[in-house]
Amino acid sequence: MAPETVATDALTPDMPSLPTPCLLLDETRMAANIARFNRRLARQGLLSRPHLKTCKSMAVAQRMLHSPTGPATVSTLAEAEYFAAHGVTDICYAVGLAPGKLDRVLALRRTGADLSVVLDAARTVTLLDMAAASLVGADDAPVPVLLEVDCDGHRGGLSPEDDELLATARAVQASPFFQLRGVLTHAGGAYARADTAHIARLAREEGEAVLRAARRLREADFDCPVISVGSTPTALLGEYPQGVTEVRAGVYPFMDLTMHALGVCALADLALSVLTTVIGHRRSDGALLVDAGWMALSLDRGLEERFPQWGFGLVCTADGTLLPGFRVSECHQEHGVIRALAPDGTPDPRACAQFSPGSRLRILPNHACATASRHDVCHVLRQGRITACWERMRGW
Amino acid sequence: MAPETVATDALTPDMPSLPTPCLLLDETRMAANIARFNRRLARQGLLSRPHLKTCKSMAVAQRMLHSPTGPATVSTLAEAEYFAAHGVTDICYAVGLAPGKLDRVLALRRTGADLSVVLDAARTVTLLDMAAASLVGADDAPVPVLLEVDCDGHRGGLSPEDDELLATARAVQASPFFQLRGVLTHAGGAYARADTAHIARLAREEGEAVLRAARRLREADFDCPVISVGSTPTALLGEYPQGVTEVRAGVYPFMDLTMHALGVCALADLALSVLTTVIGHRRSDGALLVDAGWMALSLDRGLEERFPQWGFGLVCTADGTLLPGFRVSECHQEHGVIRALAPDGTPDPRACAQFSPGSRLRILPNHACATASRHDVCHVLRQGRITACWERMRGW
Repeated sequence: MAPETVATDALTPDMPSLPTPCLLLDETRMAANIARFNRRLARQGLLSRPHLKTCKSMAVAQRMLHSPTGPATVSTLAEAEYFAAHGVTDICYAVGLAPGKLDRVLALRRTGADLSVVLDAARTVTLLDMAAASLVGADDAPVPVLLEVDCDGHRGGLSPEDDELLATARAVQASPFFQLRGVLTHAGGAYARADTAHIARLAREEGEAVLRAARRLREADFDCPVISVGSTPTALLGEYPQGVTEVRAGVYPFMDLTMHALGVCALADLALSVLTTVIGHRRSDGALLVDAGWMALSLDRGLEERFPQWGFGLVCTADGTLLPGFRVSECHQEHGVIRALAPDGTPDPRACAQFSPGSRLRILPNHACATASRHDVCHVLRQGRITACWERMRGW
Repeated sequence: MAPETVATDALTPDMPSLPTPCLLLDETRMAANIARFNRRLARQGLLSRPHLKTCKSMAVAQRMLHSPTGPATVSTLAEAEYFAAHGVTDICYAVGLAPGKLDRVLALRRTGADLSVVLDAARTVTLLDMAAASLVGADDAPVPVLLEVDCDGHRGGLSPEDDELLATARAVQASPFFQLRGVLTHAGGAYARADTAHIARLAREEGEAVLRAARRLREADFDCPVISVGSTPTALLGEYPQGVTEVRAGVYPFMDLTMHALGVCALADLALSVLTTVIGHRRSDGALLVDAGWMALSLDRGLEERFPQWGFGLVCTADGTLLPGFRVSECHQEHGVIRALAPDGTPDPRACAQFSPGSRLRILPNHACATASRHDVCHVLRQGRITACWERMRGW
């Protein structure tokens, strides 16, 4: 691994007073990541509908959103409620709607939010209709629905060629409570393989799958104004075909080791890190013990088959300079174990000896969503100083 | 897998109104698990110093603790502060103390809490002394110290034979700010191998390691009143040798699939589960999609080498009856994917078809600490009814 410097921020005078472990967000990098993403979408004439499940923070969302009211994407109704309470009104709830959650969807829509929902089966429409019968009032407009399309077999959704696609659209059209707004897909498979040409191909396939579904719906005389795709890797490494109307992505402001592994960003673009304190050394092998275990880092192993030497995260000094060969090799609840490798790949316990108990280090996470989700706040670094502490919302 | 019934609680009338995903705690099972643990320790004349990092809840802690004031163990200072605010005063902070955290230790002790700390190197004492010089006041009694002993190479600590053990004790004795109280170890290696005879042997070795360390200290004229061991598997499957004074364990009220795999408990003892709602079926393979992903379950894979068929958790109906062959096979942020195997081990997608969108299921977690840590509250089930909602504390 090259001794790449991953931060320009010098150690801030106020950073030593932060209790560890804690989450740091480099605002300068985040701003550059957001600008890059928006430029790329603008060149393709695409609307960004940022996914707010990674940030879970209005302070970050307002830097991602096109306007104070959206558009936005969320993965829980608690997120929808939180962002709506902060003025975001154009929201897509991009996880399949369960009938038991319809009451909260309606309640939020009655506050004026244009909340759309996602489903992928005619049977679900039937079940939602049964729930709606006792919940929907005379003043409630139909709830906009996006049909989830499966572009890569990764999660859920309808294949564009599946007759169930038309059956589901017919069920939505027949319902007095719902209204078809479009189709939506997510190329989750793009996180699996570190090959930029492959991901560029997935972006095309992601778009083509959802466009084929839209074409079938339109040929059958259904309205299908929204054609929604999205993932940070396909958005930044590929080009979506003509006809796609919006892009949902959430990791791009932060980036992480997985995005770096996929070729989406440089290590120097990673905006999130976990600040940790050395609490000791393991006598048997010289490993460093730090106060960031899986409670602070998550157990996400990233692309471990391809990059096993990255463990649960790479390690920087407190000012953000990468420590070549260092990685978090084990995670206990409140203990992280950091080991170092020499340039020839052999264990280098002496490299760890330079850090005394009390020394501070920063850990670059495998997966921004997972690591950030372990923290209630993030401390914002700007030009070498901690300038703010931003809250993150939690729960469902 | 036998079609073992894992719950006696019938589906409660109030359970359908709980928003999902959420954490359920079966109080009857928890009470039985705690009683079994306490009986076993009482038979050996051992003091229980429960580890409160798993429950992070005063409501659970008061059922675990010998008295309202303790003794107790914690893994963060935020836990110490939370439990002290609820009247627990005898607390061991069982993660190596970093010099930057001494101020919070002293502040808590000044409120009257008998908070002890852990360290494992003479150099750490030197660094702590430097920090203490400007923090400790004339009215502050010395901070009690336990020396961490390494019994299995699993995490940190001093080998009982290491000369550094005596050097560290001398450093503590020489310090005006600290006072030696004893030795402490944790048999973390006991979680790695599903073999009850092996774990019983580890319990003996855990005790013998810390007793050898105590003997060396006493031979060198150090006071060493506390000899502390602990882990749920070694406490429940082994016998500690004479001389051990206290046991720290935290998972035992809840149990989990890892404890079951190790032979520590029956499936029917698992008191924690995650209630989830079916949101759809994957068309390609019939898998169930549910609203509990890694945000609700954690990414802990438990003893995956030994029990890969358990995935991210086993699956029960909403009333707690195990669904043989079902497991959570994939976790995304807010999507869990459940697949079923037929008794002959082949995929059984039709078994999933019986659960419509809106159906509720319960997931038994691999690791109680990790899964519980994803939730701010747990809903308490008693005799088939939800009787309470208990808060859990967070942060560091």
